[in-house]
Amino acid sequence: MALNYPNKKKMVHKEANKANLGMDLEQMINDSNEYYLNNNIAVIHKKPTPIQIVKVDYPMRSKAVITEAYYKTPSTTDYNGIYKGKYIDFDAKETKFKTSFPIANVHPHQIEHIKRVINHQGITFLILNMNGLFYLFKGEDFIFYVENTTRKSIPYSYISEKGIIIKENYRPPLDYLKAVDKAYF
Amino acid sequence: MALNYPNKKKMVHKEANKANLGMDLEQMINDSNEYYLNNNIAVIHKKPTPIQIVKVDYPMRSKAVITEAYYKTPSTTDYNGIYKGKYIDFDAKETKFKTSFPIANVHPHQIEHIKRVINHQGITFLILNMNGLFYLFKGEDFIFYVENTTRKSIPYSYISEKGIIIKENYRPPLDYLKAVDKAYF
Repeated sequence: MALNYPNKKKMVHKEANKANLGMDLEQMINDSNEYYLNNNIAVIHKKPTPIQIVKVDYPMRSKAVITEAYYKTPSTTDYNGIYKGKYIDFDAKETKFKTSFPIANVHPHQIEHIKRVINHQGITFLILNMNGLFYLFKGEDFIFYVENTTRKSIPYSYISEKGIIIKENYRPPLDYLKAVDKAYF
Repeated sequence: MALNYPNKKKMVHKEANKANLGMDLEQMINDSNEYYLNNNIAVIHKKPTPIQIVKVDYPMRSKAVITEAYYKTPSTTDYNGIYKGKYIDFDAKETKFKTSFPIANVHPHQIEHIKRVINHQGITFLILNMNGLFYLFKGEDFIFYVENTTRKSIPYSYISEKGIIIKENYRPPLDYLKAVDKAYF
């Protein structure tokens, strides 16, 4: 299924930490993953954006050029890897809403994927950027809410109660594995 | 780094199992992963092909069209996920050579990645299609060879000695998790 991907990257201006000023959530996570990798803490990568390739040109003596392609809906979360011998799997989401997080921000395929990972004893969560804070929101708490309500969004009160605050840093910009330690180890 | 990706999919004709006739290695693995997923055995996905997007058009009232993009070198292996609570990570390779497997078939980034996964206690291996057979070739055996020789290719005798034969099937087409069981559980 091809999708309209509008301007995906939203700038997140954080007064809390000038080092990260203007750095978007994806970049903060990628930089953190690079830090974890280089310091032998974890091996976690962002999956490439899924693309449906329709047309490729092979100009003579030159590299292949994709000339028609479309964004596809991701069938899993964006990030996965290994930490302390455990399978880690998560996605990053942000919302400008202050009182609740729209469940529709997580694709149905991703919800299904999160359930499966829980079922197979993996560590899975969302990193939520909301009200100027970053939360590790456990997959278990997310799925519990989704399955036990007919509401289309999760109240911020539930997120701030269940979520674990992820501190912003200089290096790594977002030390989410500290929150993973608190939540799972 | 942009790469020239020639015709990546090579047809693999297998006399051993007519059901898989004409099915390429990637397709066999994808179908096996789907089988594992649907039968609640494992959650393993192929990562999307990494693409460097250069130009995107946004036609009015229509979905975004990528009009210029290039293939990038993968920085990890193609497949990962979770099985029996363990992190699983592998790549699929095939060669037409009969006596040895060229180490250059595995990108330096992928070799580095395999080492890291071993270091973090993950399960990592190559699925090698060679001489009409499919082998699970453990990351540990692969890295051992790469680090203890100056040769540019791995003799088939080493692969057939260390590797575990993966049987072809109707469903799943390539039951590689049986070989994982033998090698790691």
